[in-house]
Amino acid sequence: MAEIKKTDALEKLAKLIRYFILASTTAAGSGHPTSSLSATDLMTALLFGGSFRFDVDQPGHPNNDRLIFSKGHASPLFYALWAAAGKVTEQELLTMRKFGSPLEGHPTVAFSYVEASTGSLGQGLSIGLGMALNAKYIDKLPYKTYVLLGDSEMSEGSQWEALQLAAHYKLDNLVGIIDVNRLGQRGETMYGHDLAAYKKRISSFGWKTEVIDGHNLDQILKAYRKALRTEDKPVMIIARTVKGKGVSFLEDRNGWHGKALNREQFEDALKELGEIDKSVKGKVKKPDKLLPEKGIPKDANGVFYLRDKPVATRRAYGNALKRIYPQFPDMVVLDAEVSNSTYSEIFQEAYTERFFEMYIAEQNMVGTALGLQCRGKIPFVSTFAAFLTRAFDQIRMSQYSKANIKFCGSHAGVSIGEDGPSQMGLEDIAMFRAVMDSVVLYPSDAVSTEKLVEEAARHKGIVYIRTTRKETPIIYSADEEFSIGGSKVLRKSDNDRVAVIAAGITLHEALLSYEELKKEGIIIRVIDLYCIKPIDKTTLQQAARDTKAIITVEDHFSEGGIGEAVKGALDLFSIPVHCLTVRKMPRSGKPGELLDYEEISKDAIIKKIKELV
Amino acid sequence: MAEIKKTDALEKLAKLIRYFILASTTAAGSGHPTSSLSATDLMTALLFGGSFRFDVDQPGHPNNDRLIFSKGHASPLFYALWAAAGKVTEQELLTMRKFGSPLEGHPTVAFSYVEASTGSLGQGLSIGLGMALNAKYIDKLPYKTYVLLGDSEMSEGSQWEALQLAAHYKLDNLVGIIDVNRLGQRGETMYGHDLAAYKKRISSFGWKTEVIDGHNLDQILKAYRKALRTEDKPVMIIARTVKGKGVSFLEDRNGWHGKALNREQFEDALKELGEIDKSVKGKVKKPDKLLPEKGIPKDANGVFYLRDKPVATRRAYGNALKRIYPQFPDMVVLDAEVSNSTYSEIFQEAYTERFFEMYIAEQNMVGTALGLQCRGKIPFVSTFAAFLTRAFDQIRMSQYSKANIKFCGSHAGVSIGEDGPSQMGLEDIAMFRAVMDSVVLYPSDAVSTEKLVEEAARHKGIVYIRTTRKETPIIYSADEEFSIGGSKVLRKSDNDRVAVIAAGITLHEALLSYEELKKEGIIIRVIDLYCIKPIDKTTLQQAARDTKAIITVEDHFSEGGIGEAVKGALDLFSIPVHCLTVRKMPRSGKPGELLDYEEISKDAIIKKIKELV
Repeated sequence: MAEIKKTDALEKLAKLIRYFILASTTAAGSGHPTSSLSATDLMTALLFGGSFRFDVDQPGHPNNDRLIFSKGHASPLFYALWAAAGKVTEQELLTMRKFGSPLEGHPTVAFSYVEASTGSLGQGLSIGLGMALNAKYIDKLPYKTYVLLGDSEMSEGSQWEALQLAAHYKLDNLVGIIDVNRLGQRGETMYGHDLAAYKKRISSFGWKTEVIDGHNLDQILKAYRKALRTEDKPVMIIARTVKGKGVSFLEDRNGWHGKALNREQFEDALKELGEIDKSVKGKVKKPDKLLPEKGIPKDANGVFYLRDKPVATRRAYGNALKRIYPQFPDMVVLDAEVSNSTYSEIFQEAYTERFFEMYIAEQNMVGTALGLQCRGKIPFVSTFAAFLTRAFDQIRMSQYSKANIKFCGSHAGVSIGEDGPSQMGLEDIAMFRAVMDSVVLYPSDAVSTEKLVEEAARHKGIVYIRTTRKETPIIYSADEEFSIGGSKVLRKSDNDRVAVIAAGITLHEALLSYEELKKEGIIIRVIDLYCIKPIDKTTLQQAARDTKAIITVEDHFSEGGIGEAVKGALDLFSIPVHCLTVRKMPRSGKPGELLDYEEISKDAIIKKIKELV
Repeated sequence: MAEIKKTDALEKLAKLIRYFILASTTAAGSGHPTSSLSATDLMTALLFGGSFRFDVDQPGHPNNDRLIFSKGHASPLFYALWAAAGKVTEQELLTMRKFGSPLEGHPTVAFSYVEASTGSLGQGLSIGLGMALNAKYIDKLPYKTYVLLGDSEMSEGSQWEALQLAAHYKLDNLVGIIDVNRLGQRGETMYGHDLAAYKKRISSFGWKTEVIDGHNLDQILKAYRKALRTEDKPVMIIARTVKGKGVSFLEDRNGWHGKALNREQFEDALKELGEIDKSVKGKVKKPDKLLPEKGIPKDANGVFYLRDKPVATRRAYGNALKRIYPQFPDMVVLDAEVSNSTYSEIFQEAYTERFFEMYIAEQNMVGTALGLQCRGKIPFVSTFAAFLTRAFDQIRMSQYSKANIKFCGSHAGVSIGEDGPSQMGLEDIAMFRAVMDSVVLYPSDAVSTEKLVEEAARHKGIVYIRTTRKETPIIYSADEEFSIGGSKVLRKSDNDRVAVIAAGITLHEALLSYEELKKEGIIIRVIDLYCIKPIDKTTLQQAARDTKAIITVEDHFSEGGIGEAVKGALDLFSIPVHCLTVRKMPRSGKPGELLDYEEISKDAIIKKIKELV
C-alpha cells in the first residue's frame, strides 16, 4: 500500500521532470530530449524513491551518495531532477545551453550538483569507480556511487576496463544503470534491445546484474533495494527502456537523437503528458552525518643524494612519493602494472593501502584518478610516457572538471634505448602542454625531481612530470629550490655566445658540450628548463638579449615540445632559435647511439654551435 | 602415426627456436626471453604445423595468412620463428636490438615479416581485425589472420572493442591465441591461471573459445584445425602456458620479466635444453595463388558548389568521399557511430560495401584502419575531432608502421556552440602535428575541403583533415588548386600593415575584419593556412617581410596549434606574432558568442589590429 502511494508520487514527479526536459530543450532549440526521457523513470525512482541519500543543501557533503551521468547528453534530465528537488527554478532551466548559464549542453562543474564534467562517452563508470574506491578503501564512508550509462557507450573499451577493475576491487558500493533504449545517434546500437547480451557480458566480468523494465517503477525500486543489499560485487541494473518515452511520436523512433522539439511539437507533446502538477517536489533522504578521518600533515624528510652517484629521475620520483606522503596525507598513487619501471613501487612498499594497481588499462586509471580527486584526494598516476597517450581523451576531459591530478610519464624519449619506438614517449610534452592551465615539468636529476614532485603535490591542478629511464648525474645540491614557472641558469658569463636550453636527459648533454667548448674558448650559456609550462619568459628573453643564438635540445618530437615553447616565448626577438629534436624515425640501439643518431647529443650541440659562432 | 612424427619434428624445431630466443637476448643483453618461451610451442605449431599458409619468399603476397604479435615484447620468438624458417641467419639474430638491425626491441616494419609495428599492448587484435575484415568483405580472399596475445594486455579496453566488433562482423577468418603465462611485468595478472575467467568473458563477447595446454603440441595442432573449421565466429585459443618454459630456473618465476640471461645463466639454460639440431628447418605451407580483384581507377567528377550557398566543410568531406571513390577504388571508410555528424554517411549511402560502422570505439577503429592499410587499402577514419584523442596511442603507433591512413575530425573548436567543451576538438591540431611526417589540413570552405580530401587520398601517409560543424561561405571557385604544403593569400596589397593568418572557421572572421578595416583605411593581408603541416614557410616569411605584425587566429588551444606552427616558421624574423587562440575555459553558447568570448572573432581581430597600427 505504501509502495503504491510511493509509485504514484514518483509518477507525478516523473511527469513533471519530463515536462522540464521538453521545456528546457525546446527553449534551447537543441539538446537531447529523447535520451533524457528514456532514463527519466530510472533516475526519478533513484533520487526520490528512498535509496539515494544526499543533502541537497550541501552537494559537497563527504557522505552524500554520488550520481554521475556517464551519458552526459542526458543533461536535460539531470538538470530537471534537481529542479524537481527544488534546487533549480523553472526559469533557470530555460537558460540551459545559453551562454553564461551553468546548465551547459553537457554537464560541467559549472553546475554545483555535477561531480565531474562528462559528455565524452564511456568515462563516467571510471569516475564512479574512483569515488567508490575512495569510499571503501580510503574515506571508509558508507556512501554509494551511482552511474547512469547509455547503451551505445558500452562499446567503448574504457567501460570494460572499469567493469573488470570494479569487480577486482569488490566495489559493492558502486551501482551502474544502463539505459538500454536501443537507439544510438545514427541508428540501432550493436545489441539493440537484446538485454541478455548485456547481462551475459557484464556478469562474465564479475558484476551482479539485474535486468528490469526501465519504465516500471516497482521493478526499478526493487532493483535499487537489491543493489544496496549486494555484497562483494558491484551491481549493474540493465534496464529496457524506450527512447523518447512519454511522447508517442518520439518513442523508439530513429532520427530523433539530439533534436529538440519545435514549439508546435512541444505543445503536442504536452497534450500527451497531460496535466503537470508543478507543486510536487522530490524529497531526497539525507545521508548520515559522517566524515572521513583526515590525516594530519607532518613535515616530510629532507632530500639526500650522493653527488657522485647517478640516479634515474624515475627512481627519484618513487623516492619522492614516499618521502612527501606524510606532508600530503591526501595522496593516492595509481600505476598501470609498471610500478617496477616507473618506481611508484617505492611508494607502494611503504604505503600499500594508498597504492592501487590499475593493471594495463590507462583510460580507466585516469578516470579513476578523476573520481578520487573529486573526493579530495591528490592522485599521482604513472605509467610509461608513451602509454599516457592512451588516455588523452580522459586527460582532456579532466581539464573540464578543473581536476587536481598529477601524471608521471617515465621512459621519455629515444634515450630509453633498445626497447625501440613503441616504448618511447616522444609526444607527451605536446599532449600535456595542450591541456588548459596544465603544468609540465621535466627534471634532469634526482634532486630537482624530488623538489618538483613536492611542488606538484602542492599545486592544485593538472601537472605532468616527465622522467627518464637512464641514470643521470646529480647536479643540484639538496637545498636548491625549484618552482613552477622557473628555470635554472647553470652556466653563465658575460661572454656567452649561444644559449643552450635543455631539460631532462639532454641537459646533461648540454653541460658536457659546455665543458668541451670551453676548452676551445667558446663560452655558452646553459639553461635547465625544468618547467616547460608555464615557461620562464624572463630568463629566456634575457638569454636572447645576451647571446647571438638560442639552441633548444630535447628528446621529443619537434612539434609542441620545448623548441616550440621557447620560440613562443621569444617571438618578439629576432634571435635565431635552432631546435635540436627527434626528427628521424626512432629505432632500437644504445641510448648514446640514439641521442647521436637523432642529433640531440653533446656532439650534435657542439656541431650546431660551431656552425653558428 | 603421422601426427606423432609431426609433433616430433615440431619439438625439435621448438627446441631450436628456444635456443635462438636465449642466444639473441643474451647477445643483446636485454629483451624478453621468458615471454617468448611461453609462446614458443604455440607459435612453432602454428607456423610449421600445417595450418599456416605463407609464401616465405613473398611476405607481401596478398593471400598469405597473417600473423601479428600483439604482445610485441615476444619479438625474440618472432625473429626466431623466421630464423627456423630459414629467412634469418643465426648471425643476424645476434644483431637483435643493436643499432641498425631490422630486428628491433619490439617488432617494427623494418623487418619485412612484420605486418605492423607493435609493442604498445592491446593493439594487435584491432590490426588483425582490419586484415580479416579486408579478407572477408573487400579482397574476398581465403587467408586467415592470427594474433598472438598476452594475458596481461587483455586488461586493455581496446581488446574488448576488437572482440565485440570481430564477433559483430562474424570474422571466422580471425584467430586469436592468448598466451596465458600468468605473470605480467610486475607480478601476477588480474586472473592468473584462471583460464575459465578468460573463456567466460570472451565467449560472452560472441567468440568461439578453445582452452588448451599451450605446451601440448597435440592439443595445439587440434585447436588450430578446429579454428579453421569454425564458421560465422572468430576463434580464441586460450592457452595455459608457463612463462620461461623450457628453462627450469625461469619457469613461472616472478622477477624475470624483460630480463636477458647473462652468459653463465645462458650456458646453464643450454644444458637444460639439451642437444640442438641446427640442421632442422621449419616448412611453411604455401598459400593458393589468389589475387584480389582490383578496382580500376576512373576519373572523379568535378566539384560544384553554388557561390552564395554556405556549406559546412564536414558535409563537403562526405561529398568528397563519394565523389573521389571511383578515382581511388582502394578507399574504405570507417566511422565511430557519428556518420550523420561527420557526414561520412554520404559515402555510406553510395558505397555501402566499402563503409564499416565501427560503433563508439575509437581505439579499435584506428587499429582496424591500420590493418586495412597493411592490405593496401586507403582508410578514411572519421569521428568528432575531440574523440580522436581517444585513439592517440593507436595513432602514435601507426606512424611506426609508416601507415597510410586519413583521419577526419569534425566539430572542431568552440564554434560547435551549445554542446559545450566535451564535444569541442581543441587539441587535435597539436596531437596530429606531433605525429612524425604527418600532414595536417584545415579547409575553410567546401571547395577547398573537396580538393584537400582528394590530395589526402593521393598522398601516402598519415593525413589529418579538420572540419567544421557550422556552414561556412564558399570562397573558392571550383577550379582553384590546393596542395599539401600550400596556403592561399586571399587579400594582398603593397600597403598591408598586418598579416592575419587563419584557417577554417576563423578565416571567415579574418575576411570580415578585412572588409571592416578597409572602410577605415586599414589594409591587411589575409592568408588561408589550409595546410598547417607541412607549413608554407615562403608565404609566411614574405608576409613577415611585407608587414609590421602577424596575427594568427585559430579555434584551438594555444599550444601546438597554428600560432606555434607559424612562430616556428618565423623564428628568424623579429616580427611580433600575436596569437589569438582559445584561452578561456570553453562553455556552451551560440557559435558567434563563443568566438567573441574566446577573442577569436572578427571583432577580436579588429581590436588587436587597432592596437597594433
